[in-house]
Amino acid sequence: MMEDAFTPGARSRVKRAHKRGHYDRETVHAVIDACPMSHVGYVIDGQPYVTPTLVWRVGDRLFWHGSSASRMLRTVKQAVPVCVTASLFDGWVVARSGFHHSANYRCVMAFGRAEQVTGKAEKDAALMGMIDHFFPGRSLQIRANNAKELKATTLVSMEIEEASAKIRTGPPIDDDEDMQDDVWAGVVPIKTVTGRPVDDPQLKSGVDVPDYIRVMVGKVF
Amino acid sequence: MMEDAFTPGARSRVKRAHKRGHYDRETVHAVIDACPMSHVGYVIDGQPYVTPTLVWRVGDRLFWHGSSASRMLRTVKQAVPVCVTASLFDGWVVARSGFHHSANYRCVMAFGRAEQVTGKAEKDAALMGMIDHFFPGRSLQIRANNAKELKATTLVSMEIEEASAKIRTGPPIDDDEDMQDDVWAGVVPIKTVTGRPVDDPQLKSGVDVPDYIRVMVGKVF
Repeated sequence: MMEDAFTPGARSRVKRAHKRGHYDRETVHAVIDACPMSHVGYVIDGQPYVTPTLVWRVGDRLFWHGSSASRMLRTVKQAVPVCVTASLFDGWVVARSGFHHSANYRCVMAFGRAEQVTGKAEKDAALMGMIDHFFPGRSLQIRANNAKELKATTLVSMEIEEASAKIRTGPPIDDDEDMQDDVWAGVVPIKTVTGRPVDDPQLKSGVDVPDYIRVMVGKVF
Repeated sequence: MMEDAFTPGARSRVKRAHKRGHYDRETVHAVIDACPMSHVGYVIDGQPYVTPTLVWRVGDRLFWHGSSASRMLRTVKQAVPVCVTASLFDGWVVARSGFHHSANYRCVMAFGRAEQVTGKAEKDAALMGMIDHFFPGRSLQIRANNAKELKATTLVSMEIEEASAKIRTGPPIDDDEDMQDDVWAGVVPIKTVTGRPVDDPQLKSGVDVPDYIRVMVGKVF
């Protein structure tokens, strides 16, 4: 059985504004699941790289994939240390002083080492699992992957060794002596929202938007 | 005078789907400017870290700031190699085969070494410049920064040495033999939108939302 929380280590312990830090699985998982496009950090010859990519979660394991020729995947599949950061920008925090301006956000930094999923059946199932993760049930409507496609795709997964979430919500926190200043203060919310689907221009006539797409419309991340 | 384009190097040349790569300043700058929260990648003892943070641009120079105690800032101010990635997730690309599913997005990877802005006047001006960058004119409405606040803040800037943008737009690109499949295909747009401002619960009565905030409402990133 999983523990309810990740154990904070040197990499993941939230030091600045530590009251905003969370280590419980429920919070860490919720931020990762709310954020389809994460950022994968890796190192080549001492140079850091940060590549945005679609990341999905199964338990405490993160998956991502792409072209087998991708520099990012060719690097991370070698079990090097990786940082996967999921983040959502939720709004501007507009304070009475410059110093107390801030942002509302949700983010997770997850640390571990990725490994390549090489078994053909396991890889095929995980890639179809990705389709169903983002579009539940769609894997039953599309054709199977073929051998060439599987070969052209690298899939990796990473067990989360350490992770922490950091979340800020709510209004600005100003100094007492500034509270009577004649200047506006508050929050300007930012929302990431799913729009109405746009048919492919070459969509076969008579094919409707499926329900698993319809239910996404208006969804806020 | 600046060249019109960054010169692609080993770090920044777009290899996969290279037709989606852009090196011209106009495109690179536009993506950075559209994305207030970027991701800063840095390395400590071989371990990569990716920290989301507000980044703003002046010419070819990126700025970011935070607490002087921040691990990220204490690291990057030592002129180590850094990667700053700005990205916006613009939609799901839903294809007829699993393989051709994709995402529409705009992203920039910018490489360089950060340096600390230490001069008191220069730092003060740049921090007020940040306020005006995000909320034009607001610096004239708020009180000045004090010495304690300036000391508690670390500000860094990074001249972009190399950068590339990668952008995907438009419908899925399916294989010819799949075009008559009885399955929906298209794009599900994702929009990041600025909402209506929320007054601070302790806002002094009679203070209105300023125009530079009002004009942000409804703005799509």
